Amino acid sequence: MVELYWLQGAVPETTKPSPEMPPWKETAVVGKRVPRVDGYDRVSGSAVYPRDILLPDMLHAAILRCPHAHAKVKKIDVSAAEKMPGVRAILTAQSPGADIPWFPRRDKPSTSIFDQHLRCEGDEVAAVAADTLLQAQDALKAIKVQYEELPFVLSVEEALKEGAPVLHEGGNRVAPPAVYERGDLKKGLSEADAVVERTYTTACEIHVPMEVHGSVAKWDGNRLTVWDSTQGVFAVHETVAEALKIPMANVRVIGHYMGGGFGSKLECGKYTIIAALLAKVTARPVKLFLTREETFTMTGNRPPNKMSVRLGAKKDGTLTAIEFLSTGTGGAYPASATTSFMATDLYLCPNVKSSDENVFTNAGRARPFRAPGFPQCAWALEQAMDELAARLGMDPVELRLKNIPKTSQRRGNQPYTSTGLADCLREGAKAFGWNEARARKKPDGPVKKGFGVAASLWGYAGGPPSTVIVKLFSDGSVNLNMGAADIGTGTKTFMSMIVSEELGVPLEKIQIEHADTGTTQYTAPSGGSKTVPSDGPAARAAAWEVKKKLLALAAEEMKLPVEELMLSGAEIVSTKDSTKKLAVKAVKGLERQQVLVGVGTRGPNPEGKIVTPFAVHFAEVEVDERTGEVRVTRLVAAQDSGRPMNRLTYDCQVFGGLVMGIGLARTEERVLDRQTGKMVNANWHDYKIPTALDVPVDQKVVAVDPGDTECNATGAKGIGEPATIATAAAIANAVADAVGVRVVDSPITPIRMSQLFRERQKKG
Amino acid sequence: MVELYWLQGAVPETTKPSPEMPPWKETAVVGKRVPRVDGYDRVSGSAVYPRDILLPDMLHAAILRCPHAHAKVKKIDVSAAEKMPGVRAILTAQSPGADIPWFPRRDKPSTSIFDQHLRCEGDEVAAVAADTLLQAQDALKAIKVQYEELPFVLSVEEALKEGAPVLHEGGNRVAPPAVYERGDLKKGLSEADAVVERTYTTACEIHVPMEVHGSVAKWDGNRLTVWDSTQGVFAVHETVAEALKIPMANVRVIGHYMGGGFGSKLECGKYTIIAALLAKVTARPVKLFLTREETFTMTGNRPPNKMSVRLGAKKDGTLTAIEFLSTGTGGAYPASATTSFMATDLYLCPNVKSSDENVFTNAGRARPFRAPGFPQCAWALEQAMDELAARLGMDPVELRLKNIPKTSQRRGNQPYTSTGLADCLREGAKAFGWNEARARKKPDGPVKKGFGVAASLWGYAGGPPSTVIVKLFSDGSVNLNMGAADIGTGTKTFMSMIVSEELGVPLEKIQIEHADTGTTQYTAPSGGSKTVPSDGPAARAAAWEVKKKLLALAAEEMKLPVEELMLSGAEIVSTKDSTKKLAVKAVKGLERQQVLVGVGTRGPNPEGKIVTPFAVHFAEVEVDERTGEVRVTRLVAAQDSGRPMNRLTYDCQVFGGLVMGIGLARTEERVLDRQTGKMVNANWHDYKIPTALDVPVDQKVVAVDPGDTECNATGAKGIGEPATIATAAAIANAVADAVGVRVVDSPITPIRMSQLFRERQKKG
Repeated sequence: MVELYWLQGAVPETTKPSPEMPPWKETAVVGKRVPRVDGYDRVSGSAVYPRDILLPDMLHAAILRCPHAHAKVKKIDVSAAEKMPGVRAILTAQSPGADIPWFPRRDKPSTSIFDQHLRCEGDEVAAVAADTLLQAQDALKAIKVQYEELPFVLSVEEALKEGAPVLHEGGNRVAPPAVYERGDLKKGLSEADAVVERTYTTACEIHVPMEVHGSVAKWDGNRLTVWDSTQGVFAVHETVAEALKIPMANVRVIGHYMGGGFGSKLECGKYTIIAALLAKVTARPVKLFLTREETFTMTGNRPPNKMSVRLGAKKDGTLTAIEFLSTGTGGAYPASATTSFMATDLYLCPNVKSSDENVFTNAGRARPFRAPGFPQCAWALEQAMDELAARLGMDPVELRLKNIPKTSQRRGNQPYTSTGLADCLREGAKAFGWNEARARKKPDGPVKKGFGVAASLWGYAGGPPSTVIVKLFSDGSVNLNMGAADIGTGTKTFMSMIVSEELGVPLEKIQIEHADTGTTQYTAPSGGSKTVPSDGPAARAAAWEVKKKLLALAAEEMKLPVEELMLSGAEIVSTKDSTKKLAVKAVKGLERQQVLVGVGTRGPNPEGKIVTPFAVHFAEVEVDERTGEVRVTRLVAAQDSGRPMNRLTYDCQVFGGLVMGIGLARTEERVLDRQTGKMVNANWHDYKIPTALDVPVDQKVVAVDPGDTECNATGAKGIGEPATIATAAAIANAVADAVGVRVVDSPITPIRMSQLFRERQKKG
Repeated sequence: MVELYWLQGAVPETTKPSPEMPPWKETAVVGKRVPRVDGYDRVSGSAVYPRDILLPDMLHAAILRCPHAHAKVKKIDVSAAEKMPGVRAILTAQSPGADIPWFPRRDKPSTSIFDQHLRCEGDEVAAVAADTLLQAQDALKAIKVQYEELPFVLSVEEALKEGAPVLHEGGNRVAPPAVYERGDLKKGLSEADAVVERTYTTACEIHVPMEVHGSVAKWDGNRLTVWDSTQGVFAVHETVAEALKIPMANVRVIGHYMGGGFGSKLECGKYTIIAALLAKVTARPVKLFLTREETFTMTGNRPPNKMSVRLGAKKDGTLTAIEFLSTGTGGAYPASATTSFMATDLYLCPNVKSSDENVFTNAGRARPFRAPGFPQCAWALEQAMDELAARLGMDPVELRLKNIPKTSQRRGNQPYTSTGLADCLREGAKAFGWNEARARKKPDGPVKKGFGVAASLWGYAGGPPSTVIVKLFSDGSVNLNMGAADIGTGTKTFMSMIVSEELGVPLEKIQIEHADTGTTQYTAPSGGSKTVPSDGPAARAAAWEVKKKLLALAAEEMKLPVEELMLSGAEIVSTKDSTKKLAVKAVKGLERQQVLVGVGTRGPNPEGKIVTPFAVHFAEVEVDERTGEVRVTRLVAAQDSGRPMNRLTYDCQVFGGLVMGIGLARTEERVLDRQTGKMVNANWHDYKIPTALDVPVDQKVVAVDPGDTECNATGAKGIGEPATIATAAAIANAVADAVGVRVVDSPITPIRMSQLFRERQKKG
């Protein structure tokens, strides 16, 4: 139910394929455990995040938001607010120039920045810029708005009822259901020796990144600079230019540090446009950051899903049929994705049918959220697989191993460049002690231990366009210029490592300029696990070009054929006679030219093949049958994301993914009040993300590297999303293993467990 | 007597020649009169110059300078200063880490930042960083220094006397005289029908740019950012890294706006290093800008020259001999150049001898100053030519036309790619009304009118390395990334025009990032008239590459051969069928790739040929025989700098050059007190640069474009220096024409004129 446009940039760059670079064999830097190059700045506080920016004369802005789930603005009176101390500007739909279509680039039906039809709690009504933030917030309270409250719908079922309140022209269906079929489902089901069928739901989750969303906007004449807490400066760039109807050359978006996004900062926010408009009318810089509460309602979510799954298999475990029907709501505004994707592609199966349907409801809009659609799918599919294994009397790992495809059935049966799915199952099981765990004698007492497994794939693995520039200075140190944001994942570090690998320059001698549309080269936003596989090869290509130039200069000087030379540390050495060498600094051609520039682009993905990361997660839980409390006591993540670039940040990414999976499984849920349609837990106290006490100490990452030499020049396939897709399902399966009840609705709260225990007792 | 190292970067880039670009025929933008793209920012005050930078927690610094012409530091006591309010750090030679060799890259003999041997007034003794600038300046006064005063020398003659005070080990000669000879001077003189011989001197001039010199330095951990008012961020970059012994990757130098330099900001100043050291010990940003007075003594000058010239010619004007012997002093520290260059290359002559000698004196160091050495040379050579013409009874224009070479005799007789010298003489004479003026009946009365001419060439015309990057955004607007500073000459504007010419994008849709070692590509410092001919072709090559990529994408889409397509405005059009067209914005490949990147480098200069700009200046003066006052009433500058890029900034450059020439001719002179060795007019009141009242309203620029298709891809040869070389000589010749006295010593002050009138009277 979310938008995947940012993944669809993965098209071949026609003009400049990446140079021929052989796969790395042994590596000196890549793959090692390397602390972040910007760690000092981040922990010392010297890193300037957009939220930290202070400009001379800067104003502070705040947004007045709709307090109703569904309403229309009848009248706004800003006269009292205008007279409040410090107030410099108030924007409403009536302000000149404020009638800006939204979302200008992609959304149909289109709305506007201050749409008078307010479709969910939090929709923008007005904005104030004042000398201080408190003055701006005070002024909001003085704006008198007359609303016409409208009836609202919160669920798919309500939204599709006859006579239901309609959110957009054309009705509440975002689009007709997206149906996918291959083979003959009926036939498959009839051939099956065992069929399982069940409906699952997942709750709506909120991204809650550490840094709230917001921008600082500053005009110089007709040129606008925006500092934004964003995953993709170029995405913001394009939208700002289009919304304000100015050339992209007149907009500069600077990202630099940013405090997390998880998908909620992939695109430009209305707040950015509002900050720019306020800065324009006041002729002063304007800072507009959302409050924590606003980020809960208005910066996106992982939308709730309802998924009906039917699986059929032969006695030996061979799958004969998969049906996966998903209905969901991306909230009040368009958002689309296929939750079903993984269900149709993870396992070998000839007869498959899936459907994805999305309807509007009066709630905050979905946005891409770490592996959009996939954890939901895993929650349903992998629980169903578990149930199927039980039905067949098979080990769940064995059942999965039985059905491993070598091709992407959903994508024309094209072969994978590599698939480590089987190895993830085997090596993960070994690292977890799966067989021992399954064979255990169950402990007595009210606290039951259980073990679960779930597999996954991630459907995207980067691609062009991405351009990186590497400059070698005459003293042998390096500048790395890249468009990518470092969204907390260590992008600066691994990109430096790739350059270091090619050029032998230590990390501390690499200067980085990044995430600035005015100074760096285009790349798609950092999301979808694409940064490593998209930008990494471009960085390698750029460093490679620099090396080629350097060796050519050295060859001239050493009077040796260039083929004979290699770069080793800070020296150029003859491969035939290692006494023949020349320090990089001493290359006169470098001194003459001062700087060697290498431009690297991401070449196309291999033709006719599919690049896909896989992962299998194993969970151990303890369930207290007296209280219904579930503790996750142990997790093992076996990941095939190709070659790890930095084993430290790789592991950290996985740990983060596991924690997020615990959140989906156990604690996180947006609660909408049925009476008012408003979110009742829009704060960090009532919306529960896992804390340290919810996370097991015993987490292990098994990096399964299938030695993929085809996926791209780094051998890496991306780790961000595959780190979180299977976790919740593995936990749910462990719970079922522990206490024999299957939790179909996330999250697995003590209340829900208690209900299930009661039901079990009734049946019992 | 000045350093030309920054011109010596002109070496071929071996790895990437510029693409094949045909010379422009008709141009739509290039060559037009275009106001500056940053004019609004500059005049509105929104442009942030380094002097304007304010950072949170920033300290202000000031330098304690030697009050003597020659001394040694015996003892420094900072104990009282340390206790002054607001003082955060004091640096002396004794401070840890302050013992930094200077000038680290190029100077021999080497000294150090706080050298204890102080060789001229203003040498650095100590520095203070305090909360406010006034506190820092107050603290300077509290530092007690015990100096050992030493005897000093101010002139070449004194410096070379036996037993003279010695400034550096190895004596006061910077190097043995640089002698150049071709043919046989004696023979040439003996063949001559007329010989003129005379000795000329020029006074020492100060650069006096609008913005004083200075830097802001800020450390983040071990990474240093410097904002500097500089002509070349990359030159500063290299020196800072070397002085502080840190990798270049750990230093970022940002230039952006800067308020003039004229050569005095080509290299890194000690103040930059001092600011960095103070920032390091205080862990706070430090701003260190010199006072106006400091810039007079310590940021360089056009050094004084003494030039003895002998010219021999046949009756028909054919030159047979040129002798040009120059002695001068670059002050207390090394600096070298050949003042004689132009004398040996401007006119066809088989028998030539020149010599350049440079000695140390206890005065501020020379630095490159707009056309280093050349205006001095013209002052002597072109006055001698004038005298020779008179001796031969020839028109001075005719004499010059008689001796025009097609080759550079000084440089192996290689042919010029173009020479407009004859056209400059002819077209300039026509525009000036030279023949009419010469034929005039002299006016009676005490105010005499006179007319003078002087020719010139500039010995350098740019070259590699220079790299420029152009990005085309998906909406057809453009980003231009270049290392060059805009030193007030309109670099941003003409570079944008070149891009606009190639891509058909209007100037207001071009975003510029420049002069930042962290974000832009290498180029040599902006000086030596090299920016247009070095960086212009790189910009064209970058835009050309973007165009090629764009046309290739369009060809694919339009299903037409790429050769058939051209870019016209914002459309791609078929040259065979103009109804077949596609808007740039509509090119789907561009939408797919989001940004097209073109990297352009400056290819090598044409092999076996010499690129040289020429200029001829014509002056009209009025000399009041009662007061000795000289007024310049009219100037015409005929310039062959190849194709003008922007006719408006081209003209403005020439006007600036003419004004500077008036300064050399009439008003400017550093005055050193013979008793103390100290400069007595180190301020804008006593050091006279021309004001509006000194500049004629009637100034005209004749752009002689020889249609040079070989010099580089733009056809431009550089205008900065050729705009000022001949002016002073033309004025002196006009004075001689007006009143029959030849002023051999610059400047032509009323006092000097009065003396000459007295001498003329005596001779009667």
